[in-house]
Amino acid sequence: MEIPSVVIDRLPLYARILDNLEQEGQMEVSSQELGNRLNVTPAQIRKDLSYFGRFGKQGRGYNVSRLLDELRRILGLDRQWRMGLVGVGRLGRAILGYEGFSPQGFTIVSAFDSNREIIGQRIGDIEVHDVADLETALRAEPVDIGIVAVSAEMAQPVIDALVRSGVSAILNYAPVAAQAPGHVQLRRIDPVLALQSMTYHLKHGHKPASVPN
Amino acid sequence: MEIPSVVIDRLPLYARILDNLEQEGQMEVSSQELGNRLNVTPAQIRKDLSYFGRFGKQGRGYNVSRLLDELRRILGLDRQWRMGLVGVGRLGRAILGYEGFSPQGFTIVSAFDSNREIIGQRIGDIEVHDVADLETALRAEPVDIGIVAVSAEMAQPVIDALVRSGVSAILNYAPVAAQAPGHVQLRRIDPVLALQSMTYHLKHGHKPASVPN
Repeated sequence: MEIPSVVIDRLPLYARILDNLEQEGQMEVSSQELGNRLNVTPAQIRKDLSYFGRFGKQGRGYNVSRLLDELRRILGLDRQWRMGLVGVGRLGRAILGYEGFSPQGFTIVSAFDSNREIIGQRIGDIEVHDVADLETALRAEPVDIGIVAVSAEMAQPVIDALVRSGVSAILNYAPVAAQAPGHVQLRRIDPVLALQSMTYHLKHGHKPASVPN
Repeated sequence: MEIPSVVIDRLPLYARILDNLEQEGQMEVSSQELGNRLNVTPAQIRKDLSYFGRFGKQGRGYNVSRLLDELRRILGLDRQWRMGLVGVGRLGRAILGYEGFSPQGFTIVSAFDSNREIIGQRIGDIEVHDVADLETALRAEPVDIGIVAVSAEMAQPVIDALVRSGVSAILNYAPVAAQAPGHVQLRRIDPVLALQSMTYHLKHGHKPASVPN
């Protein structure tokens, strides 16, 4: 059965809430409480989770740890993922220093830049390689995910090179809508879209019932 | 009529596609073509846009410029928005240098940090102020949107100070789920959520029909 990608996109949010609940020592959770925490309806929660089998017990809700383990397994969060970073300017350095990746199983294992002054530098455990050697380097030491932190103009050629290197999941921080072949997943970190959906509510002077955080 | 926030969240994407089409010189677009470009069904497009009145003509599709103007007006993208940045470390500097904000009407007009060595520095047109003076400064020169680029531990106190200063829309880059009062919009830029929904597809070895870019 094909699972809609909007459902897949919500699963990491469910996993995060369940992780919080587990840390708070809560053992069971109802679809009502999950829904309240995520600003979605309990019916939506039950429908989303029904794609993956029967987790809940009638009238008792979900076992937090069991559902969390199951979601982690489904999402592939029970393993480590290797990432390669292209672009080691200000943004790339901020990404290298981002504390949120490694606790979640995402590790940057290689970095590339085109600037002669940056190539060869060591940042933490990572040595910056020449982006001209990207394909050779990634064939020798593959990564699962490419992170693109170059300028808008350079983003598409860099993404093309990552795809030629066999990378099939790319996170693009450049402020440009890039293209990738159908077998490649390309996600964009786009703060402007987040800002633009806030301005609606600023302009209209209210906050709606359900703004995802 | 209350418009669901999931609909609001899609409007900036529609506006972006229409902007591309306008630049390409296209005058009309069908819900089918809009849907193809966004990986959503034409029925979904028609339903979303129906909240805002009747834009399309039966069998002819939408007038690109007219719909784009209307969406910009609805979203409040026909004006400038003032933003205040808190945290001028590596990430904050990358945000100050981000080229994607100002063409879309978002301008950083003030910046704050707690580091004595950073306070008083000028970065472009912006002088970095002491975060201890945040509330006074923002009462004197209000901003529409606060951007939080501090560490995970400092994010919540900074968000609380922004809220006390009267800011009602906050973009949080810190790797932490923060809280804000009900009247405040709080969005998080969270690359891990984007990564986690890609790992599902990496693990299952396929790309679904509709991954939003």
